[in-house]
Amino acid sequence: MKKISVNTSQKYDIFIEKGLLSNCAEIIKSQTKSKKFAIITDDIVDSLYSEILINSLTHEGFTAVKYVFKNGESSKSIENLNNIYSFLAKENITRSDCIIALGGGVVGDITGFAAATFLRGLDYIQIPTTLLAQIDSSVGGKTAINLTVGKNLVGSFKQPILVICDSNVLSTLSEEILADGMAEAIKYGMIRSSSLFDLINNHNIDTVSNVLDDIIYECISIKSDVVSADEFDKGERMILNFGHTLGHAVESYYNYEKYSHGSAVAIGMALITKQAVESSLCEKIYLEKLIECIEKYRLPVKCSASLNELVPLCYNDKKRESDKINIILCSKIGACEIKQLTIENFNLFMEV
Amino acid sequence: MKKISVNTSQKYDIFIEKGLLSNCAEIIKSQTKSKKFAIITDDIVDSLYSEILINSLTHEGFTAVKYVFKNGESSKSIENLNNIYSFLAKENITRSDCIIALGGGVVGDITGFAAATFLRGLDYIQIPTTLLAQIDSSVGGKTAINLTVGKNLVGSFKQPILVICDSNVLSTLSEEILADGMAEAIKYGMIRSSSLFDLINNHNIDTVSNVLDDIIYECISIKSDVVSADEFDKGERMILNFGHTLGHAVESYYNYEKYSHGSAVAIGMALITKQAVESSLCEKIYLEKLIECIEKYRLPVKCSASLNELVPLCYNDKKRESDKINIILCSKIGACEIKQLTIENFNLFMEV
Repeated sequence: MKKISVNTSQKYDIFIEKGLLSNCAEIIKSQTKSKKFAIITDDIVDSLYSEILINSLTHEGFTAVKYVFKNGESSKSIENLNNIYSFLAKENITRSDCIIALGGGVVGDITGFAAATFLRGLDYIQIPTTLLAQIDSSVGGKTAINLTVGKNLVGSFKQPILVICDSNVLSTLSEEILADGMAEAIKYGMIRSSSLFDLINNHNIDTVSNVLDDIIYECISIKSDVVSADEFDKGERMILNFGHTLGHAVESYYNYEKYSHGSAVAIGMALITKQAVESSLCEKIYLEKLIECIEKYRLPVKCSASLNELVPLCYNDKKRESDKINIILCSKIGACEIKQLTIENFNLFMEV
Repeated sequence: MKKISVNTSQKYDIFIEKGLLSNCAEIIKSQTKSKKFAIITDDIVDSLYSEILINSLTHEGFTAVKYVFKNGESSKSIENLNNIYSFLAKENITRSDCIIALGGGVVGDITGFAAATFLRGLDYIQIPTTLLAQIDSSVGGKTAINLTVGKNLVGSFKQPILVICDSNVLSTLSEEILADGMAEAIKYGMIRSSSLFDLINNHNIDTVSNVLDDIIYECISIKSDVVSADEFDKGERMILNFGHTLGHAVESYYNYEKYSHGSAVAIGMALITKQAVESSLCEKIYLEKLIECIEKYRLPVKCSASLNELVPLCYNDKKRESDKINIILCSKIGACEIKQLTIENFNLFMEV
């Protein structure tokens, strides 16, 4: 079993092993004094994995209650949050109990936010069941819900007390959902590790399952390092945003319907790197390798929207500070920097 | 001008002076780099004080936008929170802008929670306009909204960057709202300061305005000390809960309609101290002084509900840990202790 420690204000460990879900309560027991657990999950994950989790918890003598909502981004709403709060209140969950997020990014984000705010905060555990959630959203304590006017506009920083990654659960994912996670894996390679990038680029969507455990471990290690150094996203953590400012604009332009988060980030990475090449901040060879790698995972590198249409949507980014915008540029594979530009200079850089 | 510093994770100052509101932007300028302010207030406070605040802000060259909701506890809802979020998004509020809570406890609690969670948190300033908000809710960073199933069940710890107390604004308060705050002032005297208690007990609801500035200063000093020592309510801070466990039960029993928070806390202080006397944990003379003082402010010391009816409602308290409950007892005026009791022993103590 592999273990990665995250050194945030609330320190915690991430355990990675195939098959871990079925005896995860042993690890949970070693990390918390809680005896009662409120599991929050969605209907698809529920049908696949709730029983395994609950069996493990009850085997250790724990009490478990469960709330299930409809799978999908539309559940990351203030209405569903209110339903989760009502469930927690009805089940008499107290500050000495613990919440478990069992699912992908939507489940993890909204459950983390509920845990951060119900009774002004109680402990929670992440058990991510998608590649994207395992390598990205379950680590680092960013929790969120969507508003009708924008995604992830409400949330908080709330670290889990434990993350459990069982790569066996990824075997039930569709190719599309797996590729969604691979876009973020490519991002980690681009910003921090040429060896991780090469590992990903030496495989493709059909062969990657053989090396997925190594990829997960490398991605989480990078995320853990970055988050430990900058828990509250004031500096270095912004590098995790590579491809995301334009990616969010792409998602938004198509009303979150046409492109998944990973697909939009893939487009965002390609577009911003193309602009970096145009400005002589990156050599063309790296853009070509990035595009080659993205395409191996059947992810898109462009979309029908023009930069003129996408750039204005970048100004809704949460990380924007008044009249400035932070963008992340890779000068080569494995190295990046944060550039703060005025809106005017960003427009120039984007040639709009 | 008096100043009290609060030593929480985010340190901040509380400024106290009559008439401060009309030039508060000078102080604001010294405490933040923000140039744009989103004022959140209710309709009653808006009609009295928004213009003064906005004039001060614009005089210093700041931009101000305003959101006004209906006065009253029913506005401390998830629906109103959603409206506040939409307003902040519509006004393009970014992390480098600042939110101002102008109003009483409802305004301060929900605005603080919005500031804690919109864009995962931005700075906010408290400008409390009731006595209760000045001496209690505006200091210490507890933010909250109500659920339909219970009050303050959702919230977070989010310290303001600045608190501005202008006791002139209290002159527009009704006797009832002033008394509401005096109940909390009596609480501070009971738990920490016999001299503060004597100051309060030497006056009454008709004469107290002469010494209100001193009372405000003493109360905030106590709260600041307690909160600085235990920001996240894990220990000593619970002493601020004196009278509150039963007080919340009283509020809940009457559906938050018959008794204000202060009135309910007054009843709660009297009831719990009566039980302390019964158990020989407090001398009767102190209970008599407490009741005498409460009655000088035309606050109640009992209600029609029996202990048998109130005690079960105490188990919904946020601070309860699984099968235990923490209660605060004053052994004399100015001294208190936290007792953790099992549900069984609490029932015995309450003679139910």
